[in-house]
Amino acid sequence: MFSPDSLQPRMMLVNRFSCTLKNQSVKIGHCSKVPRNVNMEKLQHGYLFPEIERHELLHLKKYPNANVIDLGIGDTTKPLPTIVTSRMVDFVRGLSTAEGYKGYGPEQGEKALRKAIAAEIYKNLDIKPSEVFVSDGAQCDISRLQAYIDSSVIIGHAGKFVDRIGKYENIEYMTCGPQTDFFPDLHTISRPQLIFFCSPNNPTGHAATRKQLQQLVDFAKVNGSIIIYDSAYSAYITDNSPKSIFEIPGAREVAIEVSSFSKLAGFTGVRLGWTVVPEELLYSNGFPVLHDFNRIVCTCFNGASSISQAGGLACLSPEGLNAVQSLVDYYMENARILVNALTSLGLTVYGGKNAPYVWVRFPGSKSWDVFAGILENTHIITIPGSGFGPGGEGYIRISAFGQRDSILEASERLKYLLYQEKL
Amino acid sequence: MFSPDSLQPRMMLVNRFSCTLKNQSVKIGHCSKVPRNVNMEKLQHGYLFPEIERHELLHLKKYPNANVIDLGIGDTTKPLPTIVTSRMVDFVRGLSTAEGYKGYGPEQGEKALRKAIAAEIYKNLDIKPSEVFVSDGAQCDISRLQAYIDSSVIIGHAGKFVDRIGKYENIEYMTCGPQTDFFPDLHTISRPQLIFFCSPNNPTGHAATRKQLQQLVDFAKVNGSIIIYDSAYSAYITDNSPKSIFEIPGAREVAIEVSSFSKLAGFTGVRLGWTVVPEELLYSNGFPVLHDFNRIVCTCFNGASSISQAGGLACLSPEGLNAVQSLVDYYMENARILVNALTSLGLTVYGGKNAPYVWVRFPGSKSWDVFAGILENTHIITIPGSGFGPGGEGYIRISAFGQRDSILEASERLKYLLYQEKL
Repeated sequence: MFSPDSLQPRMMLVNRFSCTLKNQSVKIGHCSKVPRNVNMEKLQHGYLFPEIERHELLHLKKYPNANVIDLGIGDTTKPLPTIVTSRMVDFVRGLSTAEGYKGYGPEQGEKALRKAIAAEIYKNLDIKPSEVFVSDGAQCDISRLQAYIDSSVIIGHAGKFVDRIGKYENIEYMTCGPQTDFFPDLHTISRPQLIFFCSPNNPTGHAATRKQLQQLVDFAKVNGSIIIYDSAYSAYITDNSPKSIFEIPGAREVAIEVSSFSKLAGFTGVRLGWTVVPEELLYSNGFPVLHDFNRIVCTCFNGASSISQAGGLACLSPEGLNAVQSLVDYYMENARILVNALTSLGLTVYGGKNAPYVWVRFPGSKSWDVFAGILENTHIITIPGSGFGPGGEGYIRISAFGQRDSILEASERLKYLLYQEKL
Repeated sequence: MFSPDSLQPRMMLVNRFSCTLKNQSVKIGHCSKVPRNVNMEKLQHGYLFPEIERHELLHLKKYPNANVIDLGIGDTTKPLPTIVTSRMVDFVRGLSTAEGYKGYGPEQGEKALRKAIAAEIYKNLDIKPSEVFVSDGAQCDISRLQAYIDSSVIIGHAGKFVDRIGKYENIEYMTCGPQTDFFPDLHTISRPQLIFFCSPNNPTGHAATRKQLQQLVDFAKVNGSIIIYDSAYSAYITDNSPKSIFEIPGAREVAIEVSSFSKLAGFTGVRLGWTVVPEELLYSNGFPVLHDFNRIVCTCFNGASSISQAGGLACLSPEGLNAVQSLVDYYMENARILVNALTSLGLTVYGGKNAPYVWVRFPGSKSWDVFAGILENTHIITIPGSGFGPGGEGYIRISAFGQRDSILEASERLKYLLYQEKL
């Protein structure tokens, strides 16, 4: 999407992940003369989620009868609302009739869905349907925007990985801890080209305030940067924090917003998301970013599944919006239960108010030690904060995307353990 | 996927397309300091399908009551078999139950589907399920492999566009006409890194013979090239031409195969495809291409829709395979009707035997003139052969993916016109 030669994104707040595999080199076939992309070699091996899975398997080997509760990877668990599935069922049934069959749709998404996203998600924000691009999920669009760390590495933008500090040299990692109200100190940063910002944040669960986001937009405008704003968890905001970067004056000139039905409506497996590129956002030569993004989408993508799009449209109907709000409320009640259990023990707990993640501080401890201790003693899978980057050391993340029974049981086990051990 | 610096793919047989938009530059917003990717400017503007659409709209303006028959873009028109939709309906219904709900699946696709593709599509070819990657369609994987012309342009591999000859300088366009039995003369080619080969071919409808494909595999092996083999139309092969490159000895060491349920089962809107990367295929340094492709898929993609995957699995059941074969037979009967009509007029007609495309020669004529003449006189949309590349001049492509009524009506109109005019 952006220039492979001239682009050096020096600042990125990357809080999303992708999986990996063991990078073992084996020779069992025929060597072509095609060189390997040297950038692939710079990708870091020990990827977080497979590592967590490895620990889980080892644990199950040790305790084959353990009732393990997985509050690690944030995967949705609640069934889809029947209003949504019944519309998808109708659509699928239609596909086997002459009247209902549909082949290729527009790469940018069905008009009705683009219109519904503009009207319902961006109510009163003057987003045009033509600025909305329907995707098969936020991860895919973030990758098409080259805003993942790993995508940047592959394309050669990230620079060398510096083992000593655990960072790539062309990426600026912004520590957003409680001391700065989970917002970067923008005065210390040299001019970035792309700013990746995720709010409500995964893993900290913090939703940026209006004031913070205004600072970010102003910073981007002064520096000529483009913000890639990941709002995948915006439906979980319960206070008056902005649900979209486009609530901030000036954002249309500096920001792209990437979002998803995954956490909004439990579509993690159904695959549906969207990206908003405002007309006012221009490259340095005055050319609209929107036009190039459209071209990229049309070249690299052939549209989201028509069935998923029918489901997305159902989510945005009045009954659909009510139904998905119930899902969100359910997970947020889970989060409240977890927050209450942990604070009752005197722990410092962040998140859980505007996001389904609880971010727990264990001062003086290493994240992986806390993770291991909790797993060993309670059979609960969490995520060590340091796995999200150097700034997460001393924290663990607990996902509230579980069934209520598991959340209650997990709270009891954690209370018991932490009360006993003051871990 | 491949190295952005060192890769110069000098030979590509590109017979697939992606859409585009008008590249108009407007200044209505704020210029960031992010430079535009200069490669985007090299993309050619007048893209084929929008251009065809423009002609169709003009035609409808001129003849508002015309019964236009669209045999242009090869989009499927027949409803999906009920065996396939009923499985998808069951799956979708399950998503609103506690037992049937599923969130994230593996990025590489559901195990059962990978296994079924290996077992049914590659029967007796020893493809392992772990070598099969489920995608949301062939176009997306071809783009992830950077084997589209436009993807190569965007990433900076294609070189300059030379107006005089209508070609990019780093891409070798192989003319595959009837004089060489629709196969390139491999002796005239300098060593390519990537060879993109589509068989049965779109647009010519020619399926490469076993002997031709053996030549191609041997050529790739000697030159250290990697073949990206697009077999999206293989289900349409009716003679004993290979349905997969992996029927050719040695192919596992030099080829990747990209394919799709789109034309196999009418999944153009449902979105489902796959790519096979054999373990034996290695980069020049001995590292398996499979491992990097896995990493790319995990980084840039989050798996095909679980609903589409349930549909794909149904297609590969014994009843599903019978049902999709009926779809293929229907379109191939359409092709036979078109071929018979056109040959009865003394025209030279290729394709239509192993592919649902008919490739008709109009010696001495320009493709766009023939296209315009047919549209004006019969209200039938075709595709001018020159739109697929310089080698297609003097041809038009007719798609057989229509409803039978339209195909019969179109045949009558064409017979009448061509008999009258000997166009």
